Amino acid sequence: MIDRVCIVGAGVIGSLFAGHLATVCAVDVLTRRRDHADALKRDGLRLTGKTRRHVQVGAADSPFDLQPPDLVIVATKATGLRPALATIGSELGPGVTIMPVLNGLGAEEIVREHGDWPIVSAVTFMSGTKHSDTEVEYILDTETWLGPYENTPFERVREIADLIDASGLKAEALPDLRPAQWSKLIFNAAVNPVAALTRLPHDPHFAAEQSPTDLGQLVHGLVDEGKAVARAAGIELHDDPWEMNVLATQRGSAHYPSMLEDVEAQNGTEIDLITGSLVREAGRRNVPVPLHEAMYALVKGKEDSW
Amino acid sequence: MIDRVCIVGAGVIGSLFAGHLATVCAVDVLTRRRDHADALKRDGLRLTGKTRRHVQVGAADSPFDLQPPDLVIVATKATGLRPALATIGSELGPGVTIMPVLNGLGAEEIVREHGDWPIVSAVTFMSGTKHSDTEVEYILDTETWLGPYENTPFERVREIADLIDASGLKAEALPDLRPAQWSKLIFNAAVNPVAALTRLPHDPHFAAEQSPTDLGQLVHGLVDEGKAVARAAGIELHDDPWEMNVLATQRGSAHYPSMLEDVEAQNGTEIDLITGSLVREAGRRNVPVPLHEAMYALVKGKEDSW
Repeated sequence: MIDRVCIVGAGVIGSLFAGHLATVCAVDVLTRRRDHADALKRDGLRLTGKTRRHVQVGAADSPFDLQPPDLVIVATKATGLRPALATIGSELGPGVTIMPVLNGLGAEEIVREHGDWPIVSAVTFMSGTKHSDTEVEYILDTETWLGPYENTPFERVREIADLIDASGLKAEALPDLRPAQWSKLIFNAAVNPVAALTRLPHDPHFAAEQSPTDLGQLVHGLVDEGKAVARAAGIELHDDPWEMNVLATQRGSAHYPSMLEDVEAQNGTEIDLITGSLVREAGRRNVPVPLHEAMYALVKGKEDSW
Repeated sequence: MIDRVCIVGAGVIGSLFAGHLATVCAVDVLTRRRDHADALKRDGLRLTGKTRRHVQVGAADSPFDLQPPDLVIVATKATGLRPALATIGSELGPGVTIMPVLNGLGAEEIVREHGDWPIVSAVTFMSGTKHSDTEVEYILDTETWLGPYENTPFERVREIADLIDASGLKAEALPDLRPAQWSKLIFNAAVNPVAALTRLPHDPHFAAEQSPTDLGQLVHGLVDEGKAVARAAGIELHDDPWEMNVLATQRGSAHYPSMLEDVEAQNGTEIDLITGSLVREAGRRNVPVPLHEAMYALVKGKEDSW
């Protein structure tokens, strides 16, 4: 039974989980900033957009101030995963399940370095916009996919998926998550750096391929390189990343990929976890990925320009 | 004999020609803006940096107000060439020589559409910074190369090169300019879009190629694609563009490529003339240039984001 969930990181994804799950179980939010925790305790958490909710949640900037959870959902940025585990790891008993929901590959290995807890892999396609520390707009009400990591029983995965479903979000338990993780990785690696470099939101430019120099040709080339890496890794993709891209650009209101937001705020981007994951896998398997290497070098160069 | 030179376009390059040539012949400057011409007539033109000069020049925003020249140096941006020729073309007698000094390929064909004047091809490597309408800092005192276009006698080319040399700039007359034009085109196509996308000036990042995702690897890949196009076009390059790149990054103070300045000012860039020239030549000769196509699509996408 999952009676208490701890959400680590209260950005868009963490807040969407917290705001929904708080209606079906106890929810505590572990924040990085003290004033963020204080605001949540004082004002509660408000969701707008696809869901309208206003819920009370527990909140703290230190795990010492929270009750022991049954499930920890880690929804930090990739760069925040290690610091978060260093903070919370020693406070967690062996029975707790850890579910990282991060971009890229490799989050599970990093969790494992910190302890022997059962791990559930997850990848989410939902998105939103954070309007304040206590208000998030739920924009894309798409699914979160879950799968077992190592020996985690599939029953545990199904239990978490059912809980998420009951809270009003969409979840699916899959026996093997890697095909979905790779689909999302390739999608992100094709879309995010292009958005970061051009400063275009994810709009119809990304699907245009009339002429060889249309932006969609570049995105398609990046997808094709990614698919070649997945093939070499023995992964049969859950969804075709090019179709994901075309569908997403037809949604009407263009989504701002987080890497574009990072570039506009001159924050370090997730390029090393997204494009970096793919380039490292490609290197191990001797698959040429010149376009991904170009994106990687350009985004790193952009970071160096700040 | 060249007694009077008309400089069309008073950006950095036009001003550097005007400020030097005014010490060896009569110089008139044709500007786009009336207040720019007025400022030049009132205050003269001041050069700082590698050369310190303060000269009087004729100036006007209409060719009707200028005396007939023996030589016209067109130093507009690529996008300004057609409008400039439309303005000045009907005022020029048959004896005048036209020398376009623009980035990319194809300026001579555009001049020819407007009249039968002898044309001298030119490519310049000098650079500077414009501090005001009447003051330009001369930074890189590198050469300008000249060559005959179609039937222009080589004697005429040499005469112009001698005049430029006598004025304190560096010029070299070459029997065939295309090897130099292509070297510069490939250099610009490899460096300018990368600077525009990363916002890095032309600094040592562009020569770094320790790891496959270092920026120099991308620049080198762009150079290699460009060299393959030149080979297919039967051009033996005057200089190796990669060596030009490495040398330029070792100069100490990093140069701001004009495309980076255009991006920062959110002006239309010269991507269509620089990368576009190369991509079109590659298409005609069936040479794959996926990295140049990627740069083209990204810079066009960036322009579309404004």
